[in-house]
Amino acid sequence: MPRTVKLALIPGDGIGPEVVAEAVKVLDAATAGSGVEFEKTHFSLGAARYLETGDVLTDDDLAAIAAHDVILLGAVGGVPGDPRLANANIERGLLLKLRFSLDHYVNLRPTVIYPGVPSPLASHGEVDFVVVREGTEGPYVGNGGAIRQGTPHEVANEVSVNTAYGVERVVRDAFARAQARRKKLTLVHKTNVLTFAGGLWKRIVDEVGATFPEVAVDYLHVDAATIFLVTDPARFDVIVTDNLFGDILTDLAGAISGGIGLAASGNINPDGTYPSMFEPVHGSAPDIAGLGKADPTAAILSAALLLEHIGLPDEAGAIREAVVADIAGRGGASRTTSQIGDAIVSALTA
Amino acid sequence: MPRTVKLALIPGDGIGPEVVAEAVKVLDAATAGSGVEFEKTHFSLGAARYLETGDVLTDDDLAAIAAHDVILLGAVGGVPGDPRLANANIERGLLLKLRFSLDHYVNLRPTVIYPGVPSPLASHGEVDFVVVREGTEGPYVGNGGAIRQGTPHEVANEVSVNTAYGVERVVRDAFARAQARRKKLTLVHKTNVLTFAGGLWKRIVDEVGATFPEVAVDYLHVDAATIFLVTDPARFDVIVTDNLFGDILTDLAGAISGGIGLAASGNINPDGTYPSMFEPVHGSAPDIAGLGKADPTAAILSAALLLEHIGLPDEAGAIREAVVADIAGRGGASRTTSQIGDAIVSALTA
Ligand SMILES: CC(C)[C@H](C(=O)O)[C@@H](O)C(=O)O
Ligand SMILES: CC(C)[C@H](C(=O)O)[C@@H](O)C(=O)O
Repeated sequence: MPRTVKLALIPGDGIGPEVVAEAVKVLDAATAGSGVEFEKTHFSLGAARYLETGDVLTDDDLAAIAAHDVILLGAVGGVPGDPRLANANIERGLLLKLRFSLDHYVNLRPTVIYPGVPSPLASHGEVDFVVVREGTEGPYVGNGGAIRQGTPHEVANEVSVNTAYGVERVVRDAFARAQARRKKLTLVHKTNVLTFAGGLWKRIVDEVGATFPEVAVDYLHVDAATIFLVTDPARFDVIVTDNLFGDILTDLAGAISGGIGLAASGNINPDGTYPSMFEPVHGSAPDIAGLGKADPTAAILSAALLLEHIGLPDEAGAIREAVVADIAGRGGASRTTSQIGDAIVSALTA
Repeated sequence: MPRTVKLALIPGDGIGPEVVAEAVKVLDAATAGSGVEFEKTHFSLGAARYLETGDVLTDDDLAAIAAHDVILLGAVGGVPGDPRLANANIERGLLLKLRFSLDHYVNLRPTVIYPGVPSPLASHGEVDFVVVREGTEGPYVGNGGAIRQGTPHEVANEVSVNTAYGVERVVRDAFARAQARRKKLTLVHKTNVLTFAGGLWKRIVDEVGATFPEVAVDYLHVDAATIFLVTDPARFDVIVTDNLFGDILTDLAGAISGGIGLAASGNINPDGTYPSMFEPVHGSAPDIAGLGKADPTAAILSAALLLEHIGLPDEAGAIREAVVADIAGRGGASRTTSQIGDAIVSALTA
């Protein structure tokens, strides 16, 4: 009996559909003969859908997506500055709404500098770390407001909300990952300025850390962490941090490891109450959409994270090996999106 | 008649006194014969003073400092993890209290990659930009709080406060600097997530920008800005951003330009209501304190910013030229803090 996995596909806007098509190709090739079969549903969501119907994400959309086992997302967002999108915040209304509604409290973002990938850093050693970014709290909660908007007396506030419940569960997840890796965890925050939120994070890391005696714990202010990401990225194993700091650090991590064209991510609900969602870190890049210029590698590596999540670590590992082989073989010649996908499929089945 | 400038010196902790001593040496050498005479007052403030007296910054301290024309600060902060400092937040109670009380709304942080300085970037072009970081608002206001602290039900909030008044004055300053430089201004924020604060910043930049038609305006999300700082830092001229984003970006900027041992900053009250304060971006580095190992260049370049601020641009330029010459001549031989200061004084008077 094959095991059926219900896969929700949200290709999205711009280059999203192109890279998702390649990721699905690779996903199917990697799981052929594994006994797992994907039952796929396409969801048309994003700026294009909003312009057509005026909807960003309806309750029905959300319920339909939530009925799946797992989600693969491409990228969402229209052309920057498009006046028709001025009143729609696709990021908040779609991407963040999915992350929050589906309780994706672990936003997992691995960084590896693969052999053969040119890094902007002159030297870097062996870089292989993972950022565990909190996904459901912090400055992302949307608890802001403004008075006297549009006047010289406007006051605009943003509230970062942090709970022991929310911090504890993501910190525990990060420690478990560190325990299974090189046993080093770095908390990144700004405890000297954000004393309340920082104090909570520090306390929870101390408490949970006591139950993981083998894991060495380190702390860095977020500003200092950016310095080490460019001067000594090899020092990191697992970084645990809040939603906003994680957003910033992972783009920087993507840049030093050869560009966010390679950066994969998982929005994970470890409890399994809701489907987890896997997506490349990059955006929809409308300027190169439809030209076959997008690198699908980040989407393909996100598919590998997806396979790991549904219990197929060997198939995930095979994708990663195929990607590493493909990257190592990349010469100067530029290939199209589907040529890269095909090459990774060939490497996989070779 | 010589003009007397009242200079408050706050050498602080760790390497602070060592680097301030060199900066003062250079300041005196650069202004000899300029008709300006410094009347210096030393203030013993920082972790060491707190441990002695229990005071971080009293109202009397603040009033005495405020009665000066300008301030030069080294670095403050004790040994990390010192249990005797557990209940003192020297950063908030001293450094941030000075910045907020003296209304230092322009936190000016120039970044130049000087010829001969090894950057961690493999290639970077000509890098010369300045970050205008807002200094009196944002997540730094200290409007946080927590309930049920220390329990599994703790909720810890941080409030970022942003006002049209506060944003407008710093944005106007940034535009004026861009106008006098390469006429390019980049707003960095996270408008897609922090919609209220981001919306305010965007509106003010649009409005003030309309009065600077020659300045080209660009916008980057903070995460994307970190990517460009490592892949194409030469693209930046003036960056204007909020207090926290500015903190993060300027440490990264310091790192790519050869280390925060070279990064100078000014906490400026452009209205002249209060004295402005100049300080190296680096911290007190207690691990190397007293060993003559600290590089005083950042403090010396901060002294140059100080001279510019009090209307001595030629003397400031001379310091900068002396520093550039000194850096270009740096071989592998390591020099002590005072040897570097002496070398810069010699280059200045040569
Ligand atoms: C698009 C945006 C809302 C999102 C974020 O800030 O989380 C993106 O930058 C990311 O990192 O996935
Ligand atoms: C010490 C700390 C409060 C300070 C800040 O966050 O502003 C420092 O990092 C800086 O950049 O001057």
